[in-house]
Amino acid sequence: MMLNGEKKIARPLRWAMVGGGRLGQVGYKHRTGALRDNTAFQLVAGAFDIDPERGRDFGVNIGVAENRCYDDYKTMFGEEAAREDGIEVISIATPNGTHYEICKAALEAGLHVICEKPLFFTTDEVREIKSLAEEKGKIVGVTYGFSGNQMLLQMRAMIEQGKIGDIRVVDLQYTHGFNALEEEKPSDAQKWRVDPKIAGPSFVLGDLSTHTYYMSQLIMPNMKIKELLCDRQSFIKSRAPLEDNAHVLMHYENGAVGTMWTSSINAGCMDGHRIRIVGSKASLEWWDSKPGELTYEVQGEPIQTLIRAMPYLDESCNADERLGALHVEGLSDSWANIYLKFAVAIDAKSRGDEETLKNLVYPDIDAGLEGVRWIENCVRSAENGAVWVNFE
Amino acid sequence: MMLNGEKKIARPLRWAMVGGGRLGQVGYKHRTGALRDNTAFQLVAGAFDIDPERGRDFGVNIGVAENRCYDDYKTMFGEEAAREDGIEVISIATPNGTHYEICKAALEAGLHVICEKPLFFTTDEVREIKSLAEEKGKIVGVTYGFSGNQMLLQMRAMIEQGKIGDIRVVDLQYTHGFNALEEEKPSDAQKWRVDPKIAGPSFVLGDLSTHTYYMSQLIMPNMKIKELLCDRQSFIKSRAPLEDNAHVLMHYENGAVGTMWTSSINAGCMDGHRIRIVGSKASLEWWDSKPGELTYEVQGEPIQTLIRAMPYLDESCNADERLGALHVEGLSDSWANIYLKFAVAIDAKSRGDEETLKNLVYPDIDAGLEGVRWIENCVRSAENGAVWVNFE
Amino acid sequence: MMLNGEKKIARPLRWAMVGGGRLGQVGYKHRTGALRDNTAFQLVAGAFDIDPERGRDFGVNIGVAENRCYDDYKTMFGEEAAREDGIEVISIATPNGTHYEICKAALEAGLHVICEKPLFFTTDEVREIKSLAEEKGKIVGVTYGFSGNQMLLQMRAMIEQGKIGDIRVVDLQYTHGFNALEEEKPSDAQKWRVDPKIAGPSFVLGDLSTHTYYMSQLIMPNMKIKELLCDRQSFIKSRAPLEDNAHVLMHYENGAVGTMWTSSINAGCMDGHRIRIVGSKASLEWWDSKPGELTYEVQGEPIQTLIRAMPYLDESCNADERLGALHVEGLSDSWANIYLKFAVAIDAKSRGDEETLKNLVYPDIDAGLEGVRWIENCVRSAENGAVWVNFE
Amino acid sequence: MMLNGEKKIARPLRWAMVGGGRLGQVGYKHRTGALRDNTAFQLVAGAFDIDPERGRDFGVNIGVAENRCYDDYKTMFGEEAAREDGIEVISIATPNGTHYEICKAALEAGLHVICEKPLFFTTDEVREIKSLAEEKGKIVGVTYGFSGNQMLLQMRAMIEQGKIGDIRVVDLQYTHGFNALEEEKPSDAQKWRVDPKIAGPSFVLGDLSTHTYYMSQLIMPNMKIKELLCDRQSFIKSRAPLEDNAHVLMHYENGAVGTMWTSSINAGCMDGHRIRIVGSKASLEWWDSKPGELTYEVQGEPIQTLIRAMPYLDESCNADERLGALHVEGLSDSWANIYLKFAVAIDAKSRGDEETLKNLVYPDIDAGLEGVRWIENCVRSAENGAVWVNFE
Ligand SMILES: NC(=O)c1ccc[n+]([C@@H]2O[C@H](COP(=O)([O-])OP(=O)(O)OC[C@H]3O[C@@H](n4cnc5c(N)ncnc54)[C@H](O)[C@@H]3O)[C@@H](O)[C@H]2O)c1
Ligand SMILES: NC(=O)c1ccc[n+]([C@@H]2O[C@H](COP(=O)([O-])OP(=O)(O)OC[C@H]3O[C@@H](n4cnc5c(N)ncnc54)[C@H](O)[C@@H]3O)[C@@H](O)[C@H]2O)c1
Ligand SMILES: NC(=O)c1ccc[n+]([C@@H]2O[C@H](COP(=O)([O-])OP(=O)(O)OC[C@H]3O[C@@H](n4cnc5c(N)ncnc54)[C@H](O)[C@@H]3O)[C@@H](O)[C@H]2O)c1
Ligand SMILES: NC(=O)c1ccc[n+]([C@@H]2O[C@H](COP(=O)([O-])OP(=O)(O)OC[C@H]3O[C@@H](n4cnc5c(N)ncnc54)[C@H](O)[C@@H]3O)[C@@H](O)[C@H]2O)c1
Repeated sequence: MMLNGEKKIARPLRWAMVGGGRLGQVGYKHRTGALRDNTAFQLVAGAFDIDPERGRDFGVNIGVAENRCYDDYKTMFGEEAAREDGIEVISIATPNGTHYEICKAALEAGLHVICEKPLFFTTDEVREIKSLAEEKGKIVGVTYGFSGNQMLLQMRAMIEQGKIGDIRVVDLQYTHGFNALEEEKPSDAQKWRVDPKIAGPSFVLGDLSTHTYYMSQLIMPNMKIKELLCDRQSFIKSRAPLEDNAHVLMHYENGAVGTMWTSSINAGCMDGHRIRIVGSKASLEWWDSKPGELTYEVQGEPIQTLIRAMPYLDESCNADERLGALHVEGLSDSWANIYLKFAVAIDAKSRGDEETLKNLVYPDIDAGLEGVRWIENCVRSAENGAVWVNFE
Repeated sequence: MMLNGEKKIARPLRWAMVGGGRLGQVGYKHRTGALRDNTAFQLVAGAFDIDPERGRDFGVNIGVAENRCYDDYKTMFGEEAAREDGIEVISIATPNGTHYEICKAALEAGLHVICEKPLFFTTDEVREIKSLAEEKGKIVGVTYGFSGNQMLLQMRAMIEQGKIGDIRVVDLQYTHGFNALEEEKPSDAQKWRVDPKIAGPSFVLGDLSTHTYYMSQLIMPNMKIKELLCDRQSFIKSRAPLEDNAHVLMHYENGAVGTMWTSSINAGCMDGHRIRIVGSKASLEWWDSKPGELTYEVQGEPIQTLIRAMPYLDESCNADERLGALHVEGLSDSWANIYLKFAVAIDAKSRGDEETLKNLVYPDIDAGLEGVRWIENCVRSAENGAVWVNFE
Repeated sequence: MMLNGEKKIARPLRWAMVGGGRLGQVGYKHRTGALRDNTAFQLVAGAFDIDPERGRDFGVNIGVAENRCYDDYKTMFGEEAAREDGIEVISIATPNGTHYEICKAALEAGLHVICEKPLFFTTDEVREIKSLAEEKGKIVGVTYGFSGNQMLLQMRAMIEQGKIGDIRVVDLQYTHGFNALEEEKPSDAQKWRVDPKIAGPSFVLGDLSTHTYYMSQLIMPNMKIKELLCDRQSFIKSRAPLEDNAHVLMHYENGAVGTMWTSSINAGCMDGHRIRIVGSKASLEWWDSKPGELTYEVQGEPIQTLIRAMPYLDESCNADERLGALHVEGLSDSWANIYLKFAVAIDAKSRGDEETLKNLVYPDIDAGLEGVRWIENCVRSAENGAVWVNFE
Repeated sequence: MMLNGEKKIARPLRWAMVGGGRLGQVGYKHRTGALRDNTAFQLVAGAFDIDPERGRDFGVNIGVAENRCYDDYKTMFGEEAAREDGIEVISIATPNGTHYEICKAALEAGLHVICEKPLFFTTDEVREIKSLAEEKGKIVGVTYGFSGNQMLLQMRAMIEQGKIGDIRVVDLQYTHGFNALEEEKPSDAQKWRVDPKIAGPSFVLGDLSTHTYYMSQLIMPNMKIKELLCDRQSFIKSRAPLEDNAHVLMHYENGAVGTMWTSSINAGCMDGHRIRIVGSKASLEWWDSKPGELTYEVQGEPIQTLIRAMPYLDESCNADERLGALHVEGLSDSWANIYLKFAVAIDAKSRGDEETLKNLVYPDIDAGLEGVRWIENCVRSAENGAVWVNFE
C-alpha cells in the first residue's frame, strides 16, 4: 500500500521559516517538501526576509497570519515562545553565514531546527551546536534535498546486500553551467555565494558537492575516506578565492578510490548530477536527470534499469512511495521524503522514542558535520597546492 | 520570477472530495495537486469512500475534521450547504459510472465540480450537465492530470507561432503493460474498469487515451478530426467486450493524419506516453518519461532539446514554474498546475470575471465532452468492424 | 571465436554489379558489404552506370579492369560468358523498374543474382522469376540491407524460445524526414522514386517499409498476416499517386495485431527505424539508432538492455561477430552479414548442398516475393479507400 | 558527394601485416580498415603469428598467397625486398614489447610502417625511430583506431571556430569492465598486458587512455598540458605493478584543467569512452556508444545534437563520408578513415608531396610520441605517490 498522505505522526508540527522569502531560491523547496501532505508540518509563522516589510507581505500571501509574520527571527523566537500554540520547529533558509547564530538561538529558544547546507563554516561550530542540541533534547536536521530520492535507498540496500561486491571506484559529479558566463548583474543569491564572509570557505564545493557527498555516504555508510586531494579554480576571476570548479580525488580506507567533479561553469550542462559506484562484480549508477531510474550493470550480464515504485525494489526504497510506478516524480518529491523523516524524528525525540530515532535514516546533524568536514578538508588540500591530505 | 506558492486568488477555496479514499488509486493525485501550495484549495470535508467507516478514518488521518467526514455525498452536500463555512467545490474521484449523478447533485447543490475522466458515459449526458452548469453559473473541470505539464504549453506556443509549419502527422501513444498478465485477484480498481456497467463503453480508450487525446487538442487547438477508424482487442478474454488494446487512425480536416495506440497489455512498457507532431518544416516530440524535455527537430538542422524552466521557453510555458531549471519535476507538478487553473477559473466565475475565463486554457467541461465524444466515435467504429466513421 | 575474416567458402566468387555507379545511392553499400573481408566476393566486372563513359571511369577508379567495365549489362553478360574466368554472380543496384528484365537476363545467362528491393512490380513477375531460377539452379538474393543486423537474430531466437510468450502486438516503423521539404531540384534518385513507371506502385511503402516488413518476418517466422488496411498520403502533391507517408494496420492469423508507419516526410526524424514486439509476458524492442542494443522488457521486472557480441546472447546472434563487444557497428556491418550469407548460399547451391541451403536464414527470393506482396496488398487497400483487405 | 570508394591514390599500396593472426584481438580491425574499399591497400603478405604454422594457415584463409605467408617478419622483410612486386608498407599488430624492433627493422628494410599503440616503451625510443624514419623518408603511422571517427573532426572545427569559447575543463574517460573479475584462465592477450616486460610500464594507461589522450589532442591541437597527477591502482592484485584503474588530473598551459579516468575494472560498463570539452560559452560532448552523434550545449540555449553526415557539419567532418546520414556506423568505419589517411600520407611521402603531408591530420609518429610521453609522465607521477609532475 502506498503512502497516500495519511499521517505518520499524531498531529502536524507547528513550523516556521527563517528566510526563504519571495526572492529566496530555496525557500519554496522547503515549503513544498514540508507541506506536501499537510500531515507532517503546518506553516504558522515566519521571519521570511531580511526586509521585514517584504517578508510580511510574502508571508500573508502564502497563508501565514499577518501577526505571525515577524520582523526578524529573534522577535519570532521570543513572541512565539509566549504563545500556547507557539512554533515547535523552524527551518533556516538564509545565506550560509547566518546559519550558526540562528540555529543557536533557536535551540536556546527550545526549538527543533532544520537547517540549510552547508551547515556552518567550521566543524568546531557544528560540534558545539551538536552538544547544545543534545543538551536541549532537540533535533537538528540538514536539508540535503536531493538525498530524499528513493532510488538512493535502493542503492543502499543493494550495496548492503552485496549485489555489487566490494566497492572499488566511486564516481561522483554535481555540475551545472549557470555560472559559466560572467553576469553583469548577479542576483543577490549569486553575490553572497562568492563572498567568503557570507558563503564561508568555498563556493561550489559547499553549494553543490556537499549534497552529493552526503548522498554517497547515505548509500555506502561503511565507506570512510582516508585521504583526499582537491584542485579548485575560479574561472571567473572575480570569484577568487572561492572556486567555481573543483576536482577531488579520494582514497577510502578499504582501498577504494573516488572522484568528485563539482562545477557551476560546466557550460550548457543540464544533466550533471550523477553517482556511479563500481564494485568488484557490478556497478550502480544514478543520474538526477532520470531521478526515478537506477542502472544496475553486472559484469557479463545484460544491463538492468530499475524503475521507482516497482514491486521488485527493496522495501526501504518503496516505503514512502506516493504515486506508483509509471509516474515520474522529481525534486519536490525528494524534499517531501526528507521533511517527512524530519517530522518523524522530531516527533520521536519529543516522545523520547530513541528506538525509532536509532533506525531512522535521514540527514541529521552528523550529516551536517560531515558536509562541513568535507569542505574543510577539500579547502585545506586546495590551499596547499592540491596535495593529498589526511581526511581529518 | 517564479511562482513560489504565493496566492493567485484572494483566499483558498473550501474543497471536498467524493471518493479517492484510502484504497483509491487516483485520490492522492487530486490532493497533492490541489494542496500543493495551500493557497488555492483547502480540504475541509469529504465522502471519501463507499465504506463510510473507512472513509471517516481515512479523512481524519489526512487532517479533515471528523464531523465533516460524511457517510455519502448526498449527506455531505446537504449538511455542508447548511454551514456558513460550507464547501464551495468538490472533486469526484469515484468509478466512472457514478460521475454523472454525483456531478449533477453537486451542481444542483450549488457547488463547482472537478470531475475525473472519462466524464460520463455519453455525450448527451455531458451536454445536459453542461447546460445545468451554465444555468447554475458553476465551473466543471476535468482532471486530465498529465495535461498540466508545462512543456505541452511550449508545444502549443511553438505550433501557434508556425515553428513546425503545417501539421501533417500526429502520432499519439499512451500504453503500459500493467494488465499484460492475467491477474488471479484483480484489485477493485481493476475489476470495475472492465465492467461496462461501471466503466462505460470502453476500458483503455477511456482510461488512457482520453488523456492523450485532450493533450493533443491542447497543443493543436485548431486541428479537428474529420473521420477515424478504431480497431480494438481484448487480449485477456474475460475483459471483452471492453478492450485492453486499441489502435486508432484519424483523418483531420486539414488533410493531416494521425494515429493513437493505447494499451494496458504493452508488456514491460514503462515509458509509453508519447506525443509527436510532424509539421511541414519540423517536428515536436514529448515523452512522459522525460516530462521536462521537448525535442524539436527541424528538418536539416541539429536536433534541439528544450528543457523545462529555461528562459528561452515561451512565457506561457514558464508562467507557473515552481522549481527552476535543472530540477526534474513529474506528475504531481502537472496536477498542481491544473488544479491551480481550476482555482483561478472558479474564482473568476464567482467574481463574474468572464475575461479571465475566456483566456484561461484548462480542461473544462468542453474538454470533458471531447473525451467522451472520442470514446463514442472510437467504439462506434470498432463495433462496426474497425471501419471509418465520421467524427460526430 | 570471432569471424576474423577467414574464408567460409573455398574461394571468393567472381562478382559484377549492374548499376550502383558514381552517383548511385546504394551501390557503395553493396560493395562494402560484399568485399568486407575479401573472402566471399571479388569485384571483377560491372555495368555500373546508365552512362557508359561515367560507368567505365568509375569502375576503373574502384579497381575494376577497364576491359571489364561494360557499356550495358547485356554486353557484360555476353562477354563474360565467353571468359574462362567470367563472372558467376551479379548484383542489381538500378532503379526498380529495371530489376525484372536484368534479373531475367542474368539467370538466362547462367548467373546467380543479388537484387535490390523492391524486387519487381508484381508478385506474378516474382513467381515467374522464381521458376526460372529453380530451373537454372541459381540463387536470387534480395538486399534487405538492415536485415543483416545480428540483434534481429537474437530477437528471433528469444521469440522462438518463448521468452516473450505469445505475440500480441507488432509495432513497426520506418520513417525519416528527408523528403519533408519540397525540393527545387530533386536528385535523379528522388525523381524516379515518385514516377510509377520506374518506381512501381508505391514510394515509401516499397522504399522503406519492405525492409521492416521483412525484418519482422525474419524475427517472427511463424506470424502470418490475415488482413490489413493501408492509409497512404502524398503530402507533397506532385508525388501523387505515389505516397510519401502511410500507416498500415494488420491482423495476424493468431489474433495478434500490428501497425506499420512508413514515411519520408517525418520532418527532422533521424531515428525512425524501430521494431517492437509485444508478447504476453514481455516485449522486445530494437531501434536502428542504437543498432547493437536490444531492449527486453519482462512485465514486472527491471528492463534489460542486451548488447551485441556479449557471450550471453544466442549462438545464432554471435555467429558472424567481427569486432567484439564494446565496439559499435552499424549499417555496413549488416550488409557484410547478408552478403556473406549470399556467398554461402551460392556456394552451397553450386555444390548441390541442399542441407546447408535449408538451414540458412537469409533474404532469398521468397523474401523478395513477400515484399512485393506486401506492397500489392497495401496499395490495393489504399486504393479502395483505406479498407481492410485479405492478405493475398 | 560522398566518398563512394573511389581511389584517392593512384593504385593500392602493397601491404603486409606482422602479427594480427587468427587469435589476435586487433588484427581484424587493421584489415577491415585498410581493405575497406580495396583502393588504398592490398594485403599481399604477412608474418601473422608467433606460431608460423598457424600464421600460414590463417594467411591463406584470408586470401594471402601461401608463399608470401612468412615464418617471421625478418624473413618477410628480406624476401619481399627481393621481389619486384614486394611489399611497401607493413602494419604491426603484435604485443607492445616487440613494436620497437619490428618497426626499426621495417624502416631499415625501406618500408613504411603502421604500428599499434602504445608505440614503444620510452620516448627516447620513439625519438630514435623518428630520426630513422626521417632519414629513410618513410611514414610511421599509429593506429589510434577510434580517432578516425568523423565527429571528432567536427569538434576540432567547432573549437577552432570559437564555437565554445575558451576551453576550461577537459573531461576524458575510457573505461570498461571486462577485467573486473579475476579470470581463471586469462587469454594470451590478457596475460601479456599485465607483464611489464611485454606491456611496458602501464596497463590501462597505455591500452586505453592513449587513444583518448590522442583524440583530445586531435580536437584541441593548441592545448598543451603543463603538469599532471596520476593515481593508479591494481584492484586485481596479481596485476601489480601494472594498473587496472587510474585517474589523472591535468593542468593545461592556458589555465584549463582536465581529468582522465581509465579503467578495465569498471564493472558492467559498456559505454565508457567519452570526451567532454567545456568552454567559456558552450560544451561539446561525444560518447563512443553513439559514435555518430555530438552534443553541443550552449549555455542558456536548447541542447543541440549533431548527426554524422548531415550537410550542416563542417566540410572536414564530412570529407570522408561513405554511407550518408541516418545510417549509424561504428568502429570499423573509424579504422577505414585512418587507414585511408595513412595511404594518402604514404603516397604523398613517396611522391615527395610535402604540401599534402603538411595539411593532413592523422596519427603520425608525433602522435605516437605523445602517447608514450603521456604514459611516462603518468607513471612517474604515480610512482612518486600520485603527485604533481611537470609534463616533460
Ligand atoms: N538544499 C538545497 O538544495 C539548496 C538550494 C539552494 C540553496 N541552498 C542553501 O539555502 C540557503 C539560502 O540560499 P538561497 O539561494 O535561497 O539564498 P537567497 O539569497 O536566494 O535567499 C535568502 C533568503 O533569506 C532571507 N534572509 C537573509 N538573511 C535573513 C535573516 N537574517 N533573517 C531572515 N531572512 C533572511 C533573504 O531575504 C532571502 O529571502 C543557503 O545556505 C544555500 O546554501 C540549499
Ligand atoms: N486522472 C487520472 O490520471 C486518473 C488516474 C486513475 C484513475 N482516474 C479516474 O479516477 C476515477 C477513480 O478511479 P480509481 O482508479 O481511483 O478507482 P478506485 O476504485 O481505485 O477508487 C475509487 C474510490 O472511490 C470510492 N467510492 C466509490 N464509490 C463511491 C461513492 N459512491 N461515494 C464515495 N466514494 C466512493 C472508493 O471507496 C474508492 O476510494 C475513475 O473515473 C478513473 O477513470 C483518473
Ligand atoms: N537496400 C537498401 O537499403 C536500398 C537503399 C537505397 C536504394 N535501394 C534500392 O536500390 C535501387 C537503386 O536505388 P538508388 O537509390 O541507388 O538509385 P540511384 O538512382 O541513386 O542509382 C541508380 C544507379 O543505377 C544506374 N543505372 C540505372 N539504369 C541502369 C542500367 N540500365 N544499367 C546500368 N546501370 C543503370 C545509374 O546510373 C545509377 O548509378 C532501387 O531499387 C532502390 O529501391 C535499396
Ligand atoms: N588500436 C586499438 O584499438 C587496439 C586494440 C587492441 C590492441 N591494440 C594493440 O595491438 C597490439 C596487439 O594487441 P592484441 O590484443 O591484438 O594482442 P594479441 O595477443 O591478441 O595478438 C597478438 C598477435 O601477434 C602475434 N605475434 C606475437 N609476436 C609476434 C611476432 N614476433 N611476429 C609475428 N606475430 C607475432 C600473435 O601470434 C597474435 O596473433 C598491442 O600493441 C595492443 O596494445 C590496439
